[in-house]
Amino acid sequence: MTMKQIHCEIITIGDEILIGQIVDTNSAWMAAELNKIGIRVKQISSVSDDAGHIIAALDLAAHRADIILITGGLGPTKDDLTKKTLAAYFDSLMVFNRQQFAHIERIFTAFGREVTPINRQQAEVPQCCTCLPNEMGTAPGMWFEKKDRVFVSMPGVPYEMKSLMQKEVLPRLKAHFQTPVILHRTFRTQGVGESMLASWIEQWEDALPPHLKLAYLPSVGEVKLRISASGDDLEILEQEISEQSQQLYQLIGKHIYAEGEDSLALTVHRALVSKGLTLSIAESCTGGAIAASITQNAGASAYFIGGMVSYDNRIKADFLDVPDDVLETKGAVSEAAVQYMASGIRKKFETNVSIAVSGVAGPSGGTDEKPVGLVWIAVDGAQGILTKQFRFAKDRERNIEMTRLSALKMLLDYLNSER
Amino acid sequence: MTMKQIHCEIITIGDEILIGQIVDTNSAWMAAELNKIGIRVKQISSVSDDAGHIIAALDLAAHRADIILITGGLGPTKDDLTKKTLAAYFDSLMVFNRQQFAHIERIFTAFGREVTPINRQQAEVPQCCTCLPNEMGTAPGMWFEKKDRVFVSMPGVPYEMKSLMQKEVLPRLKAHFQTPVILHRTFRTQGVGESMLASWIEQWEDALPPHLKLAYLPSVGEVKLRISASGDDLEILEQEISEQSQQLYQLIGKHIYAEGEDSLALTVHRALVSKGLTLSIAESCTGGAIAASITQNAGASAYFIGGMVSYDNRIKADFLDVPDDVLETKGAVSEAAVQYMASGIRKKFETNVSIAVSGVAGPSGGTDEKPVGLVWIAVDGAQGILTKQFRFAKDRERNIEMTRLSALKMLLDYLNSER
Repeated sequence: MTMKQIHCEIITIGDEILIGQIVDTNSAWMAAELNKIGIRVKQISSVSDDAGHIIAALDLAAHRADIILITGGLGPTKDDLTKKTLAAYFDSLMVFNRQQFAHIERIFTAFGREVTPINRQQAEVPQCCTCLPNEMGTAPGMWFEKKDRVFVSMPGVPYEMKSLMQKEVLPRLKAHFQTPVILHRTFRTQGVGESMLASWIEQWEDALPPHLKLAYLPSVGEVKLRISASGDDLEILEQEISEQSQQLYQLIGKHIYAEGEDSLALTVHRALVSKGLTLSIAESCTGGAIAASITQNAGASAYFIGGMVSYDNRIKADFLDVPDDVLETKGAVSEAAVQYMASGIRKKFETNVSIAVSGVAGPSGGTDEKPVGLVWIAVDGAQGILTKQFRFAKDRERNIEMTRLSALKMLLDYLNSER
Repeated sequence: MTMKQIHCEIITIGDEILIGQIVDTNSAWMAAELNKIGIRVKQISSVSDDAGHIIAALDLAAHRADIILITGGLGPTKDDLTKKTLAAYFDSLMVFNRQQFAHIERIFTAFGREVTPINRQQAEVPQCCTCLPNEMGTAPGMWFEKKDRVFVSMPGVPYEMKSLMQKEVLPRLKAHFQTPVILHRTFRTQGVGESMLASWIEQWEDALPPHLKLAYLPSVGEVKLRISASGDDLEILEQEISEQSQQLYQLIGKHIYAEGEDSLALTVHRALVSKGLTLSIAESCTGGAIAASITQNAGASAYFIGGMVSYDNRIKADFLDVPDDVLETKGAVSEAAVQYMASGIRKKFETNVSIAVSGVAGPSGGTDEKPVGLVWIAVDGAQGILTKQFRFAKDRERNIEMTRLSALKMLLDYLNSER
């Protein structure tokens, strides 16, 4: 089966991006979503709030792509520039859309506010477009068709754009252009570098059939692996991707902590909730970052009892019962110290499991024996204390993040090894 | 004095951006820096690793702008596509550049690695360009001139690009195009909304001379105000901006916590270091986020003794001495509870000052009396305990961030009011 590759261009409108006031995060999100349904993004262009410039950009994009997605320039303070420009571009009149106005009224009533004339303007749209309902705001999405090309205009507010894309634009694009069936499955790993993973799975990767592709998506301390399968038969693809996933698990399963969009902190959260275990945390070099990431999860109070940021050695000694002679002879960054910290916080806060970390975050404070980047982590629980030494980088921010992730991964492995 | 407005276009090259694997943060940074020297960015385009597409983008950009800045597509694994494409575009041969090769050798020697043939390739550049030394990596910046237009190619690695921009590209652009003298001064405020600030300074803002512009730069919990002055006499502009700043301080001085790039956590850090005071923190709803932001500052160990994340009420009672009857009758989110938490941590950890926060972060856990977003903050020190109630939003992440910033601002005000 061969299918014409569908191309898309993204045009973002707004001076905020061109003066560097905001970073355009919308385009990357849109590009990733389009990729997942087999549509390739050919170009992303950011242009100014200027009718001539917008029309020139639309013209150029229509020569290169089948789909043109436009974001931004729709707020009431923008004087509806984009909307009027689109009406001119498509040779269409602006008309008052009753349904759209009813939607605006509903939103305002829900917030107990009155509809002003400026809001009434938001219900005016080019006559030739199909309005796409925006559940998150007052500016509608607008779908235009012209000579085999599809143009969609959306607001630039990220959550409004995302909601419109997911509920309206992506399903409509899939139906309009017979896009191939594309399946993705993403595996999240922690603690192993990209090149190491690549070497372990090289043979398997080389043997993948051509319609199955593997992508490496690295970030600090983590590497995501994504298998994408494209074809025309959903069931066959599902079967293939499932078989390949099994093989991948056999090769590197112990490094995969979750699939999809679940962060490590959320995976730990779920494990503790499902096992009904409580957690306490004693942090030194991470300064509260581990506890902060755990408590980002709504509902963390079900299992997280509390944490201690024992930055000064006095706190380690007085409140976590790390013996003075350990701190003096072995130092705060030592296996013995984190063992005492982990057992100390677990006993004091009376929890089922605990984490403790101590390290040299840098940039100063390193010695020949204990360089910047040296970190000790301990996990304590019913199965006893587990400790591990790590050597991270020279950068403070990176060391804190690597320590946080490594500690969460150690805890997760500890929980999963419980009988 | 009238000066021709100089326009720039930014072209980023690389499939990583078009498949949504990375967000293009380079362009916003570059646009902000160009703006500061009076150069306006006309368009930002992201194009694929494809010679034809790159040349088309260069051609279009050269019709619209005086300066074309290109990033990305220069790594050794990219097969030097951008470099060869630029050579073709400028009708130039690729030549081996001795100086560039010596630079690559120096970098490799410093890392104890050997120069491979692929690295030798990185010393090949189009004959017609001026090489700009890249102190942070092996790919050079390349400066081209063609018919009044300047083209500069840089690597896409953010710290390499930034270093090249600051040390080479921006100074050269200033010299090449007689850009106006532009001065900026940025004032950072916390805890007041944009519209509130705008109403307080409306008269002053309206009276600003036309060559002085004010910009509002809002983010969660903070608003930055930036005065930009453009002209041709540096001394006069400095004088003007200083006079206007004085007036601004008279109007909203107590809300300005710092100028320039200094974050609130860094400002608190500096105040504690300069006053020689120690700090402890008791956190409930922020779950460690305040301590984590304080300890992001290198050298925080000079004053930060430690923190307690008293998530469970048991920890508030047993380790911070919040009386059981306060927790029972008034609850953990109450003025009395945060007062006890602040004085408890300060006494136990023996510090000069302390912060305590307790609130309903959400999304659940709210009641009619104590809705999601209700937060109490206390600061304790030699001048006694200060408490304040806040009502933030419905969103958990936002509530945590607003609480963190508000607590740091309360501490800063407390420190600054000390005699």
